Amino acid sequence: MKIGGKHTRSIWTAGEDAFGILDQTRLPHEVVTLTLRDPEAAANAIVTMQTRGAPLIGAVGAYGLALAMREDPSDENLNKVHDMLAETRPTAINLRWALERMKNALLNQKREERAALAWAEAAAIADEDVAMSQAIGRNGLAIIRDIAAKKPGRTVNILTHCNAGWLATVDYGTALAPIYLAHDAGIPLHVWVDETRPRNQGASLTAFELGSHGVAHTILADNAGGHYMQAGQVDMVIVGTDRVTANGDVANKIGTYLKALAARDNGVPFYVALPSSTIDWAIADGRDIPIEERSPDEILKMTGRDARGQVVTVEIAAPGSPAANPGFDVTPARLVTGFITERGTCAATPEGLRSLFST
Amino acid sequence: MKIGGKHTRSIWTAGEDAFGILDQTRLPHEVVTLTLRDPEAAANAIVTMQTRGAPLIGAVGAYGLALAMREDPSDENLNKVHDMLAETRPTAINLRWALERMKNALLNQKREERAALAWAEAAAIADEDVAMSQAIGRNGLAIIRDIAAKKPGRTVNILTHCNAGWLATVDYGTALAPIYLAHDAGIPLHVWVDETRPRNQGASLTAFELGSHGVAHTILADNAGGHYMQAGQVDMVIVGTDRVTANGDVANKIGTYLKALAARDNGVPFYVALPSSTIDWAIADGRDIPIEERSPDEILKMTGRDARGQVVTVEIAAPGSPAANPGFDVTPARLVTGFITERGTCAATPEGLRSLFST
Repeated sequence: MKIGGKHTRSIWTAGEDAFGILDQTRLPHEVVTLTLRDPEAAANAIVTMQTRGAPLIGAVGAYGLALAMREDPSDENLNKVHDMLAETRPTAINLRWALERMKNALLNQKREERAALAWAEAAAIADEDVAMSQAIGRNGLAIIRDIAAKKPGRTVNILTHCNAGWLATVDYGTALAPIYLAHDAGIPLHVWVDETRPRNQGASLTAFELGSHGVAHTILADNAGGHYMQAGQVDMVIVGTDRVTANGDVANKIGTYLKALAARDNGVPFYVALPSSTIDWAIADGRDIPIEERSPDEILKMTGRDARGQVVTVEIAAPGSPAANPGFDVTPARLVTGFITERGTCAATPEGLRSLFST
Repeated sequence: MKIGGKHTRSIWTAGEDAFGILDQTRLPHEVVTLTLRDPEAAANAIVTMQTRGAPLIGAVGAYGLALAMREDPSDENLNKVHDMLAETRPTAINLRWALERMKNALLNQKREERAALAWAEAAAIADEDVAMSQAIGRNGLAIIRDIAAKKPGRTVNILTHCNAGWLATVDYGTALAPIYLAHDAGIPLHVWVDETRPRNQGASLTAFELGSHGVAHTILADNAGGHYMQAGQVDMVIVGTDRVTANGDVANKIGTYLKALAARDNGVPFYVALPSSTIDWAIADGRDIPIEERSPDEILKMTGRDARGQVVTVEIAAPGSPAANPGFDVTPARLVTGFITERGTCAATPEGLRSLFST
């Protein structure tokens, strides 16, 4: 990722007792960084969605737990902070995966070594996430190349929902990594960006990323993707995911299921890009994935820049009307054309997943 | 409809040389009425969506043409104003139906009588729209009663998209008319209200209407309806429409198609409520319906009440990113359980439509 021409990651260390992130609630209106110095600050950043994206909050959780080991490296504190961080968001599995990995790396180690070990393990999680994103990019690029080859000289139109770019990972992204590589390889591309109500991650984060990278794109109301698929103006869909079950069901940002239905109805391939840390081998059926219910205010209010450029929040709905706000839905595996992972692509089936990750 | 306890319609006459409407762009933040005194003002109100809803803009167009007959009752002016009003919005067919009816009622009449005849014809169109809405309500009520009978004592959950209530018609509504009658009949009801981006007619107009009438409801992001259908929390979908083809394809607010797909995938009945003025017998295939492309600003900006209660508009998307804004999509007849019309219910097929409207 580049901001103002300078390469950086979505998460970075600041010495060995703090780490930094972008405050994503301020984007696209302002680029503001946050320095987190204790696990409570990390938990708060996850809960408020100052940081978000399944792979990225795994790394944030890991660094948060590492900070706790500087304060108190006891088993008791390790377990307590592990559980506190794990409860910040229920649907994304990468957070639990990262925290579990941290715990396993630390529990049998000497207490006086835990702080340094934890810091190194968090760094490894972040570095591996970057490597996985790059591999996802290469594997997805092959699919985009195949589609481009079938329409030589014409633009490949890709629809995405929510944000699964570098802002959702440590760098590069999952769904957007193949798009960046294809763009850099000179394949003519255009991305339909779902606005992604209620938090507008598409219009604010994905559009910001694509614009920064120079990728042609158009923001759509979430309602419009089906219409463009009917009109033959979508060649493929790529989305990220917060949890994939062993059967291949996909939890992702609310509304993903509707786009998968439209893709199926119009013969448009629907791909899900993920690092293996997103797979929950313990759950078979997507209906068993806990779905986070978020604040109605995310529906009833909207933040933007007023005529003077100031960031203000306005109430947009009928006064007194309640709202419900499930954060995710589950797309059944039957609607998914394939998974794009760091080890290659596979069918959205138990066999497909096992073929890549049996060892 | 009632505002502040007083029964009124969405359109009313003010003497014989003006008519009044609500400025729907100010709802739900303010209740503001407009008095329109010439056909250009009527056209402007339709273009800017100060007035909207397929049946209602038919009545607004009729009164606009009637005002033109006071100014200049010549054939030339009749044709000119007819065409000017017909071009204000391309997708809804009721407007063309009403204008054609006005023209046919006036062309062979004496010029000195045209102003009075036109005023009376516009009033007849408005009165008939109310009668059609009431009949749609009764016919839809029967369907809701059947669903309620299968879950005695439990709430019937109905999802709707956009606004097809009294604000979209002269009174009562199309999709919402059965809901009002069912509520008044004591059937326990709850309505899932799609926000309906980008203009938020659900969150602003439908929620306002339902709240005013005391009907339990919850606003949802447009992305969430599929999730609630998967969870078994939607018993039926009812929407309005801007144009139904002779084959039963349905143009309605962008995003309707996605809800129809989700309803089909989950076995939820999907009904479309319409007066016969919405049927375009001249088009068979929904793909031949012109789809209005509206301003990207509707996606990129949002209007609401700030902390001081003032209505302000804010920019919400990444600066510099473009947006596309198709106003409607087409739901194929195969996804529609049935039509609810003023003459009864029928299948969404050529035979179904002909069975009700062959004479």
